[in-house]
Amino acid sequence: MKKFVTEHQSPYLDLSAEVSEILYEGKSDFQDIIVADSKEFGRMLVLDGVFQTSDKDEFIYHECITHIPLFLHPNPKNVLIIGGGDGGAAREAVRHPEVEHVTMVDIDGKVIELSKQFFPAISKAMRENNPKLTVKVGDGIAFMREAKDFYDVIIVDCSDPVGPGEGLFTYEFYKDTFKALKEDGLFVQQTESPFMHSKLVREIKDCVSDIFPITRLYTAFIPLYPTGMHCFTMGSKKYDPLTWEPNRKRTFPTKYYNEGIQRSAFVLPNFVKDVLYGEKDR
Amino acid sequence: MKKFVTEHQSPYLDLSAEVSEILYEGKSDFQDIIVADSKEFGRMLVLDGVFQTSDKDEFIYHECITHIPLFLHPNPKNVLIIGGGDGGAAREAVRHPEVEHVTMVDIDGKVIELSKQFFPAISKAMRENNPKLTVKVGDGIAFMREAKDFYDVIIVDCSDPVGPGEGLFTYEFYKDTFKALKEDGLFVQQTESPFMHSKLVREIKDCVSDIFPITRLYTAFIPLYPTGMHCFTMGSKKYDPLTWEPNRKRTFPTKYYNEGIQRSAFVLPNFVKDVLYGEKDR
Repeated sequence: MKKFVTEHQSPYLDLSAEVSEILYEGKSDFQDIIVADSKEFGRMLVLDGVFQTSDKDEFIYHECITHIPLFLHPNPKNVLIIGGGDGGAAREAVRHPEVEHVTMVDIDGKVIELSKQFFPAISKAMRENNPKLTVKVGDGIAFMREAKDFYDVIIVDCSDPVGPGEGLFTYEFYKDTFKALKEDGLFVQQTESPFMHSKLVREIKDCVSDIFPITRLYTAFIPLYPTGMHCFTMGSKKYDPLTWEPNRKRTFPTKYYNEGIQRSAFVLPNFVKDVLYGEKDR
Repeated sequence: MKKFVTEHQSPYLDLSAEVSEILYEGKSDFQDIIVADSKEFGRMLVLDGVFQTSDKDEFIYHECITHIPLFLHPNPKNVLIIGGGDGGAAREAVRHPEVEHVTMVDIDGKVIELSKQFFPAISKAMRENNPKLTVKVGDGIAFMREAKDFYDVIIVDCSDPVGPGEGLFTYEFYKDTFKALKEDGLFVQQTESPFMHSKLVREIKDCVSDIFPITRLYTAFIPLYPTGMHCFTMGSKKYDPLTWEPNRKRTFPTKYYNEGIQRSAFVLPNFVKDVLYGEKDR
């Protein structure tokens, strides 16, 4: 008898991955959690039925949400990660020699614990107690409300805008994010698929661009996520990715990211430009 | 009772789309064919259980397989399409004022007939008997064997390398394609997902680069296809997409393609470079 984990990518579309073993199935205070070994994607983390990451394709998401904002900033010393409980964004952030301190705030300690147990590669920086990294279990929204003029780069590595991630997609949260950043700071957030979630992508862009002088979208191929076309929204106070020139040498190898991707990720197909800038309620 | 069409994207991964109606289910001389109205992708064409195209995302595939090679060539007059029975590539090709003649050769007349019946937008150029277009029902491999020094651009819009598409992924076919092209001609072929089908992508690249002086890969986001990350392999006698500069004005609107995409589609993530140029049998 074959076993599958299935994500309802939309009410009308299911992606089912055959698994050889369910390693963990339980509940935290915030969500249902499954860890399973799939045959296509290797080990997978599933939260509230949504595929979060896999050993086989995690490098794409984690490199793109981390290196693209960090290499845009010429000197990112203090980095804040909201969410990111699996530890993948933290692992990538500490690789930058310029980064002095990474604070990670995830609401769900159970995800952190399970990642350390079942995803040793993804959780490397957490497991090894990397001296640059501080991990806090707590409410990212409340944390952001208290922060002021401190961070160079903020990475919002959240789940979907339902459940525990919901409050991370609000005007108030973006206002607090602006306040928490230094005068040349920038932030990035995962913002779903511009093909499937165009209304959400437009709303976030309108919200962020009301607060930040520079708002840009970039895309990455993420096989595990709905449509495979994933986007990230960036709000920046000073640095514009569209005029980026290399400002330092990359000192570590990457599997997805390179200097060409730093530019090309911001080149948008016409239908995505239309999602962002076309008339609303078409 | 909900109805679904399911593609086994790999032996271990299924994508299932809920459908409101199956409009056609039958067999041609070459393959099983389903036409269905899905709730996520609109009307879909399914051949031998593989999702081929949908009303909602077809523009991406058809624009990318057509406009990227056609705009690379400064004066594409004669275009050959092998496969492409739904008519989408032909529809895009005839939009170029420079294109004088498009010959399309698909082995399966039933696909052509069903596309005219059920996909009026995709089959537009075929349905309207566009004067630039000649549609032939026949064996693309045999057709290519007879052609010599005639085409500016050849588009191999084939299904997967099993079943009727199999002979379109061979050394002999690429040799014949080279022969069929003018001295500054170029061809492009859909070559699956570099994430999921890396062995195939590497084999094709090695094969094409043995014959053509310039071999390049480009990618596009195609939600309907496995992993959403699709690639196209290009063999060119003279023009190199990596040094492309606009050589004429685009005279028609597009939904995915633009001049930024013409360049950025060729910017490859590191793991794809590794698929193409890394040591074999890693």
